[in-house]
Amino acid sequence: MTQPNHVIAIDLMGGDDNPLTRLRAIQKFIIQNSQLNIQLFVGKFFHQKNQPVFQNLSKQIKVILTDDVIQMDESPLLALRQKRSSSLSKAIESVANKEAHAVLTAGNSGALVAFAKYWLRVDEVVERPALATVLPGYPKPTLLLDIGASLEYRAEDLYALAELGAKIAPKLFDCGSHPEVALLNVGTEHIKGHDTVQQADRLLQASALNYLGFCEGSHLFSGYADVICCDGFVGNITLKACEGLMKKLQNKQHLKWWQKWFCQFIDVNLNPAQYNGALLLGLDGLVVKAHGNSDEEGFFHALLRTAEYVNKQTKWGQQIQ
Amino acid sequence: MTQPNHVIAIDLMGGDDNPLTRLRAIQKFIIQNSQLNIQLFVGKFFHQKNQPVFQNLSKQIKVILTDDVIQMDESPLLALRQKRSSSLSKAIESVANKEAHAVLTAGNSGALVAFAKYWLRVDEVVERPALATVLPGYPKPTLLLDIGASLEYRAEDLYALAELGAKIAPKLFDCGSHPEVALLNVGTEHIKGHDTVQQADRLLQASALNYLGFCEGSHLFSGYADVICCDGFVGNITLKACEGLMKKLQNKQHLKWWQKWFCQFIDVNLNPAQYNGALLLGLDGLVVKAHGNSDEEGFFHALLRTAEYVNKQTKWGQQIQ
Repeated sequence: MTQPNHVIAIDLMGGDDNPLTRLRAIQKFIIQNSQLNIQLFVGKFFHQKNQPVFQNLSKQIKVILTDDVIQMDESPLLALRQKRSSSLSKAIESVANKEAHAVLTAGNSGALVAFAKYWLRVDEVVERPALATVLPGYPKPTLLLDIGASLEYRAEDLYALAELGAKIAPKLFDCGSHPEVALLNVGTEHIKGHDTVQQADRLLQASALNYLGFCEGSHLFSGYADVICCDGFVGNITLKACEGLMKKLQNKQHLKWWQKWFCQFIDVNLNPAQYNGALLLGLDGLVVKAHGNSDEEGFFHALLRTAEYVNKQTKWGQQIQ
Repeated sequence: MTQPNHVIAIDLMGGDDNPLTRLRAIQKFIIQNSQLNIQLFVGKFFHQKNQPVFQNLSKQIKVILTDDVIQMDESPLLALRQKRSSSLSKAIESVANKEAHAVLTAGNSGALVAFAKYWLRVDEVVERPALATVLPGYPKPTLLLDIGASLEYRAEDLYALAELGAKIAPKLFDCGSHPEVALLNVGTEHIKGHDTVQQADRLLQASALNYLGFCEGSHLFSGYADVICCDGFVGNITLKACEGLMKKLQNKQHLKWWQKWFCQFIDVNLNPAQYNGALLLGLDGLVVKAHGNSDEEGFFHALLRTAEYVNKQTKWGQQIQ
């Protein structure tokens, strides 16, 4: 499926799990995608300690050693000042230098946003990048943003976010050139919500966007709108709650053996690992964020999504961003 | 199950659906709970129009006509000033006057909070009431609050909310006298989140509560803590998103007939209607809020929960609130 000569830069060091978990996912992926190349950014101390693992890698994987590694609980601003030679920073720099078509990391979200802004020019529409994911809605998918790049939004930021979403959605799935946009709130009535969403609602009503008004959490999976916007605090918590719920439903400890056996045939779409890989939008380059707690399967799917985004970008002949 | 002489006041008029939908749920419930009595607050115009329906009600249902009805999109403050003789206000007043043990409504949340504060003295711990629901976590349930009573919280409000949750949880399910409390955030690390949750985290760390720190959306259904706190904007959207997801999973249009047939045996717990009925905490009286969009099944379950809460209150020999 993947076109030849595509290169994905991967920050192997970012994530809660041991980097070797992610390396296994990459090796599995490479076997199935023989025409794709990986730039693997690895902290040199980790590389030294695990040398045997790196000796027999596929030729499609090029290991690049870096001096530093950014921890998951590190301050993004300190990291930006002190760790430009980290695996995360170097992987993003590779996209800025057009040496890779996309970058993938499961690392520190704050540091990712900080370095992405540093290396990749921010889009003129938005002051700051936003994390977005495509939800598997029925009868049609929905682009949800922001799911965690910025936690606090003013009304004008929500407006810019809606413009960004409306610009990107048609490049990701079939929704026409004028996608329907909604603002996430506690109710659909215009009196609902706090001042920020109320003001944003007024701005959006006066805009040229195909704006539907407020929507509720229950609309996220119902194909209510092509684009649903919210601040990163709400988006992040909501998405993780839904993933947690799906995991709970997948936990079949309470089922009998024959029920467990049956489940394998009906709930393939339940697997949250399949939806791993959020896009960081509003930048001059393709940046994909995998969950911090991605396991091997989750990181594999994030890699699959990254390759799909690279393909879509090639197909469109222009940046998804 | 229900003890004799318990009385539930119901605001029939509040909710998105036709009040007759809720009336059917009440009649079905009454048949199964022959020792429970209902005070049914009905707008007089609606009653006039639907007189035949009200003529053959069970003797357990006492109809009380009211002059006014509060619409779902009405301003809560205006309603509080002008509609003290509405079905919602009168139903809550009945609890204040000790004529009913609890009140149930699917009506306007903002107006509910306003009238509940007006009629039922607010608890000394919290300045404002909070909506709470018990999530069916595994291996243990979790009390989530606030799910929509107040949308904006300062750090000290989140602190008070945590105290309220810790006080109530032991009365609702088995979690010892010192329940574990967590604060909902975008990550568990102490550097995560905006200023408000950061400050609340520091206040809670210094408190006598059994405080675990931050938790993420994925912890809501994993039995991570007995009590999880967040502002009502996040709580409302998150809960509705999870319900929307469950509904989507219940939508079996894409399944083959034999798969549909099988599903009935395994996903009983998936039904969001079963978890209808949120408690409005911090008041001197039992107030239960059903979803605005409750259908017959949903309102039936909200009524079931209300009766359970009344029983629990009797068992504890003190107010759940």
